[in-house]
Amino acid sequence: MKELGELETPILLTNTLAVPRVADFLIDYMLALPGNEDVRSINPVVGETNDGRLNDIRARAITRDDVFNAIRSAHDGDVEEGSVGAGTGTIAFDFKGGIGTASRKLPATLGGYTVGVLVQTNFGGVLSIAGAPVGKELGKYAFKNELGSCMMVVATDAPVDARNLKRLAARAIMGFARTGASGSNGSGDYVIAFSTQRSPSQFLANDSMSPLFMAAIEATEEAIINSLFAAKKVGDVDALPIDETIKILRKHNVAAGFSPPVR
Amino acid sequence: MKELGELETPILLTNTLAVPRVADFLIDYMLALPGNEDVRSINPVVGETNDGRLNDIRARAITRDDVFNAIRSAHDGDVEEGSVGAGTGTIAFDFKGGIGTASRKLPATLGGYTVGVLVQTNFGGVLSIAGAPVGKELGKYAFKNELGSCMMVVATDAPVDARNLKRLAARAIMGFARTGASGSNGSGDYVIAFSTQRSPSQFLANDSMSPLFMAAIEATEEAIINSLFAAKKVGDVDALPIDETIKILRKHNVAAGFSPPVR
Amino acid sequence: MKELGELETPILLTNTLAVPRVADFLIDYMLALPGNEDVRSINPVVGETNDGRLNDIRARAITRDDVFNAIRSAHDGDVEEGSVGAGTGTIAFDFKGGIGTASRKLPATLGGYTVGVLVQTNFGGVLSIAGAPVGKELGKYAFKNELGSCMMVVATDAPVDARNLKRLAARAIMGFARTGASGSNGSGDYVIAFSTQRSPSQFLANDSMSPLFMAAIEATEEAIINSLFAAKKVGDVDALPIDETIKILRKHNVAAGFSPPVR
Amino acid sequence: MKELGELETPILLTNTLAVPRVADFLIDYMLALPGNEDVRSINPVVGETNDGRLNDIRARAITRDDVFNAIRSAHDGDVEEGSVGAGTGTIAFDFKGGIGTASRKLPATLGGYTVGVLVQTNFGGVLSIAGAPVGKELGKYAFKNELGSCMMVVATDAPVDARNLKRLAARAIMGFARTGASGSNGSGDYVIAFSTQRSPSQFLANDSMSPLFMAAIEATEEAIINSLFAAKKVGDVDALPIDETIKILRKHNVAAGFSPPVR
Repeated sequence: MKELGELETPILLTNTLAVPRVADFLIDYMLALPGNEDVRSINPVVGETNDGRLNDIRARAITRDDVFNAIRSAHDGDVEEGSVGAGTGTIAFDFKGGIGTASRKLPATLGGYTVGVLVQTNFGGVLSIAGAPVGKELGKYAFKNELGSCMMVVATDAPVDARNLKRLAARAIMGFARTGASGSNGSGDYVIAFSTQRSPSQFLANDSMSPLFMAAIEATEEAIINSLFAAKKVGDVDALPIDETIKILRKHNVAAGFSPPVR
Repeated sequence: MKELGELETPILLTNTLAVPRVADFLIDYMLALPGNEDVRSINPVVGETNDGRLNDIRARAITRDDVFNAIRSAHDGDVEEGSVGAGTGTIAFDFKGGIGTASRKLPATLGGYTVGVLVQTNFGGVLSIAGAPVGKELGKYAFKNELGSCMMVVATDAPVDARNLKRLAARAIMGFARTGASGSNGSGDYVIAFSTQRSPSQFLANDSMSPLFMAAIEATEEAIINSLFAAKKVGDVDALPIDETIKILRKHNVAAGFSPPVR
Repeated sequence: MKELGELETPILLTNTLAVPRVADFLIDYMLALPGNEDVRSINPVVGETNDGRLNDIRARAITRDDVFNAIRSAHDGDVEEGSVGAGTGTIAFDFKGGIGTASRKLPATLGGYTVGVLVQTNFGGVLSIAGAPVGKELGKYAFKNELGSCMMVVATDAPVDARNLKRLAARAIMGFARTGASGSNGSGDYVIAFSTQRSPSQFLANDSMSPLFMAAIEATEEAIINSLFAAKKVGDVDALPIDETIKILRKHNVAAGFSPPVR
Repeated sequence: MKELGELETPILLTNTLAVPRVADFLIDYMLALPGNEDVRSINPVVGETNDGRLNDIRARAITRDDVFNAIRSAHDGDVEEGSVGAGTGTIAFDFKGGIGTASRKLPATLGGYTVGVLVQTNFGGVLSIAGAPVGKELGKYAFKNELGSCMMVVATDAPVDARNLKRLAARAIMGFARTGASGSNGSGDYVIAFSTQRSPSQFLANDSMSPLFMAAIEATEEAIINSLFAAKKVGDVDALPIDETIKILRKHNVAAGFSPPVR
């Protein structure tokens, strides 16, 4: 993708050891699509985090049916968040992590474009929500999640070229940083950004990018927080205690109008 | 530096248009050092931000004496912060920015190493101090500073090789992000990281890096905030209103024991 | 590998569409190794080129046994070259390509280190052998191999750190260029370089790298040529005509003492 | 340029230690242009090689007038080659190097675009001309030019975006490699590629790039050779002996129709 600036498949997320298997099933899927009978090259895109503490990751239990169903059931509109899919076994800030998503839509005067972010949260640090030191107040200093990382997918309908998509991806890391992530050694935090406009007649100029950058920062931060609010306890890993969290937010005068996803 | 992993000169900071001039004076300085009589190659390192709103940047007023004096007066111990040196004309979050510095020292059990950060703050965003929405409460939404950026220098006495220094530098961006920086289009935010250990017998292993990463995040965040607390009004750009800021921090239950630099 | 500088598995080569499958089998292999019972993270390394013209690449015919046998039968000493393994279906310069290998050993005064290169040749261009325009004289202008590329593996027993390994890898591209490769759009020419010294007490300094760089250039060039001399006709793709080639080399006064691998 | 994909000034070439001075004069020039009265940011582009063996590089003798004259006397048509300008003091393959240029024009069926290359040659290796081992036959094994490097500028009128310009630049290194360059440790070989089309209505697609890539490889190789044919003896560094070289080319059956620049 870096070399050719081309995204040939859906982006799938799974756990670290299942990446090859999922990529192989994704190739199966692509080769079987009508019209692809003569295709002899596919670069499958699969992201991952390591859920080896909660999941029997060595089993690589995912099946071809799982992958095909995931692709076929993709849909517009609301997205399931929390302990689902590749987020089922993840841990973030020592709470149950998972899948989270959020977006920002620019006003028409700035182009009206949308930036959407989907994250798979599985990393350490000390949780901060909209600036409030939630992790600290809950006594959760999560510096030991050495195999963890955060996988972030940024999508936009703005006509952004490869160079500016790379810059957009860099801003997702800024949203990630705002949540209190520690970027520890094993944290292979990774962003992929893409535009849904395949061959626009004109790409956005540099000086139109700033609002999209801000949108990516904010949407990434919110997507990560959403993943925590939506996730439920799995095994011995507790979910974020919502009532206590709301109290902490209030104590720090944060979050009027805050509406996390319903768990 | 990326290619050879070598830092041959002091790191100087100035404004955008003065970079060549300062680099030339730095070469003068290096060539004149005793023992350098036969040196025929120097890669001068000069960082910059654009202070063209407050400063007559086109004049490139800096002189050889300024540069030589800056190098010769470098010293251990406390560092001047705020509206000094290359920070004299900078603006951050629509307040007067400047030079800021902070450091973290790891406990002996984690190696006892120090990470120090010095920043030159000249960028936009909505200021957040230790999570408190100071910029928002003060009505400062600084999204227009298109020529701004943040220059960050990270130093450590830990024996870190080039690959891990690059990773350490990436964490400074995370501290930068925590302050509410917007990473706007013109924001050429830049980090250089170096180790003071030139030829250690052994470099730190990857799995010893996490505490240094956390130190870089925290020290960068604090250095940026320090630059604002220390900076004084210049021209029509106000300094951060300290009393009001303290009130906002209190309102958000932040900052017991917080001790910003004396302005 | 770029992030952590660590190579956790053998390096396997296959075709483009079989990469995930081979990576999955490689994970099987690694997880099953004695002592790895608790391992929950593996980053398998698999290189590829696209052999879709000669091979039914969509079938992904490779099996777990193929992969395990390949790993278990790896040995010191001579390596099979030509139309073997991942080189069975490759095409280079419109001749049958394949696996090739070559090495250089530095004199003791330069450290006595060895640089070995193994290539999988599957790309276009106009073949040049030791400077002689073999492709041109044989009328082979191979500019259409859009799916082709060259996979290059560089190994050394010199204690080279990650930064200098990256530079060493860049020199393999220079050897590749010397053979007349065209670096066409689809040519995802890729080099991976590693050192067999895991934790040396001291890494080589920059100024000791030049002989290793030259060794990598020469060994890569020779390895590519060797792959052609060793490869046999497969399907409708002819092998390099050795007698004619030797004549062309003589016409251009090249190759006294030249000893290609026996086909 | 990497970040914003923008080239704001002419590209100037000089020696290593004069880069800042030339950049400063280039800023002078740009700021003084009519219409630039309010410009407060310029990113000057200056390339270099180290001519410290033949030139008193420490003197940095270049003046503002030299720079202004160089810019003002730039013109269409033939370019001076050899020991001129930033090539006056350079050495390549132990012969006098200098400035060289060459270009390729694609046939109309491939778009009719032109790729032009200008080089500043100052590096080591064993010279190969169109494959003929000229350096070897002349006994010139130039492995000691540790401060040398090759600066390459690639220009095209094809509408190529930043990502594909980066790929185009990578192909110039392949042309460089074909000349027998050794890519030694101190060789900071550098390519900058740009398009003369500022805001094309449509950028070239990936699959139209291959002919441009081949053009860049060939033009770079030829430009380097041209720099040697055009350069004259300077100090104790001999020019390439043209008569002997022609004999060697004939001996190796190279170069029918070869027309180097007139010295």
